[in-house]
Amino acid sequence: MRSDRCVTRRNKLIQLLRKADVSTLLVTSPLNVSYLTGFTGEDSFLIIGPKVTRIVSDTRFETQLQQECPDVDAEIRTSRTSVPDFLGNILSKLSLTSLAIESSTTTLDLYQSLVEKLKTVRLVPTSGSVESLRQCKDSSEIEEMRSAIRQAEKGFELMRTSILVDQTERQAAFDLEHSMRRFGALRAAFSPIIAVGDRSALPHYRAGSNRFSDADFFLIDWGAVSSGGYHSDLTRVLVTSKLPPKLAQVYGVVLRAQLAGIQAIRPGIKCQEVDAAARKIIDQAGYGKYFGHGLGHGIGLEIHESPRLNPISTDVLKPGMIVTVEPGIYLPGVGGIRIEDDVLVTRDGCEVLTSLPKEFPECVN
Amino acid sequence: MRSDRCVTRRNKLIQLLRKADVSTLLVTSPLNVSYLTGFTGEDSFLIIGPKVTRIVSDTRFETQLQQECPDVDAEIRTSRTSVPDFLGNILSKLSLTSLAIESSTTTLDLYQSLVEKLKTVRLVPTSGSVESLRQCKDSSEIEEMRSAIRQAEKGFELMRTSILVDQTERQAAFDLEHSMRRFGALRAAFSPIIAVGDRSALPHYRAGSNRFSDADFFLIDWGAVSSGGYHSDLTRVLVTSKLPPKLAQVYGVVLRAQLAGIQAIRPGIKCQEVDAAARKIIDQAGYGKYFGHGLGHGIGLEIHESPRLNPISTDVLKPGMIVTVEPGIYLPGVGGIRIEDDVLVTRDGCEVLTSLPKEFPECVN
Repeated sequence: MRSDRCVTRRNKLIQLLRKADVSTLLVTSPLNVSYLTGFTGEDSFLIIGPKVTRIVSDTRFETQLQQECPDVDAEIRTSRTSVPDFLGNILSKLSLTSLAIESSTTTLDLYQSLVEKLKTVRLVPTSGSVESLRQCKDSSEIEEMRSAIRQAEKGFELMRTSILVDQTERQAAFDLEHSMRRFGALRAAFSPIIAVGDRSALPHYRAGSNRFSDADFFLIDWGAVSSGGYHSDLTRVLVTSKLPPKLAQVYGVVLRAQLAGIQAIRPGIKCQEVDAAARKIIDQAGYGKYFGHGLGHGIGLEIHESPRLNPISTDVLKPGMIVTVEPGIYLPGVGGIRIEDDVLVTRDGCEVLTSLPKEFPECVN
Repeated sequence: MRSDRCVTRRNKLIQLLRKADVSTLLVTSPLNVSYLTGFTGEDSFLIIGPKVTRIVSDTRFETQLQQECPDVDAEIRTSRTSVPDFLGNILSKLSLTSLAIESSTTTLDLYQSLVEKLKTVRLVPTSGSVESLRQCKDSSEIEEMRSAIRQAEKGFELMRTSILVDQTERQAAFDLEHSMRRFGALRAAFSPIIAVGDRSALPHYRAGSNRFSDADFFLIDWGAVSSGGYHSDLTRVLVTSKLPPKLAQVYGVVLRAQLAGIQAIRPGIKCQEVDAAARKIIDQAGYGKYFGHGLGHGIGLEIHESPRLNPISTDVLKPGMIVTVEPGIYLPGVGGIRIEDDVLVTRDGCEVLTSLPKEFPECVN
């Protein structure tokens, strides 16, 4: 089943490559290798084209490759050969005239070695081919996303009941990761952002030494990685007492903007229009200059992937895409409000995959 | 103080570069940027040479840069410019004739953009300069290493008391990370290896669904990352009941080999001689073919760095180096024994920084 899905993905990629000038691709991104083969290890490469599908790995992963992708030929390197030598030799034997190489994940070191070893092959740096396929999730990926969201939500609910007012943001972030793992997550999708009081006005704050008792509210932005490697991403604002009146008003604006953004999501709409639907609400309320980032981003094997929902995005939504919708208003020295959900584009609209309440700021416990 | 240390490091690097053909280096490794400046964020670059020390970052890190390295000039990119454009413009204005670029951490994408933008500059891919400086730790780094070891050891002692026989390896690995964090660790140095019974014979096993009750012993290989980003790395074998007689004998051999390796460590000795001192004991006991990896590796900002202790290493030990000493014997289908400590090379010998008992396999709790 799993294997069938990977065959479908590889066939789509080969179609894509055929349309381009170069028909064989060296995949160096571990996530792309995993997407195309099912193999979840590291330090391995995939050579793929109309005449070849071959994974290049080493002895550490021999057993794992047999288990995870028995249908893909594997070349196993021992510690007696270097990666560039081994890979170069395999590629030379394929008698290619040209070879595309993923340029955003290939190091200059590896590239130079291949240039040296493949003198008669035209090497073509390229990017985005596999990533474009990854935009639309198949049913197994949507299930993985649902798992990652469930792990994040359940882990959050468990962590929330045990928050103590004298605990620091960082301690709570560690507890949250541990709780998500108890529900099956591999790890946190990123270092959780837990920002007490006015720290919530810093969109790139992580979690530090402030204590929950230092203010009456906090912002939390977190996610889980499912066993298959898919990410979830949520944001909520919670109160230990209550929001300052100014932020309570801002909360209402952000919520209306977020609902308007979700309302706009359907196949065929431009991502910039979705961004505009939410941004308009914030602009009209007079907070436009306090919403400095895009409305959202695609999510899957990476926490941020294409498409992007922002004012300059040229992407168009298609069924199977999963995007975050996360407007925010950040008032320096006062605090920030952001509300974030993960949304699946369906055939006739969308489905909000996340389910934690957001109508008003929940109380911590 | 911190700043002084970074100035010393940068001056040493500039000396190194002067001896080479190219005097200015583009540092793209985040760890090397951190080592040379004290800045702990990501996605930033350092341009360093006799006439320039400049960090190239973006608005996310503006405040952090002012706090962490106020003595280094910073160029701050906004989202209106791309990384290659911004970096290319800054580099063009420096009127360099040549520029070294760290080739093992620069992507082909970035390199190609720079080739395009810096037509009059000779770009020289290079590697290992900063890494060679990082081999010998200064006093602040040794303190960080001691912290990372303390966090790993205390976290382990705490986790160990709460192991239940029906717990899986993976649950215990998660508990271990959580425990280390309670003692101040940022995170685990790597996914802990917890291998129950004969899984311990697989040197690259991680932690899976086996339960402690599935066998009478297990191997655990783990470490912590200190707040300053330094790694520790330890291995012990523990028993829930007792070792099978065969492995009890092997345990004695591995312990003697490990002690012989540590005994050999002093400034001026070749790393291959240290490896040989331990390997000889294992060979003489007839287990040579079951010890398939090197004796150890340098450790610091990365879990594996130079120097390497193995039969082909040409490195020579110097004061301030910190290396792991971790011989192992792996009997397929039976089990593996590895004992690992972290050892500082001193002026007249060495100091074992780790302190957990190893004279015989400890009981779990």
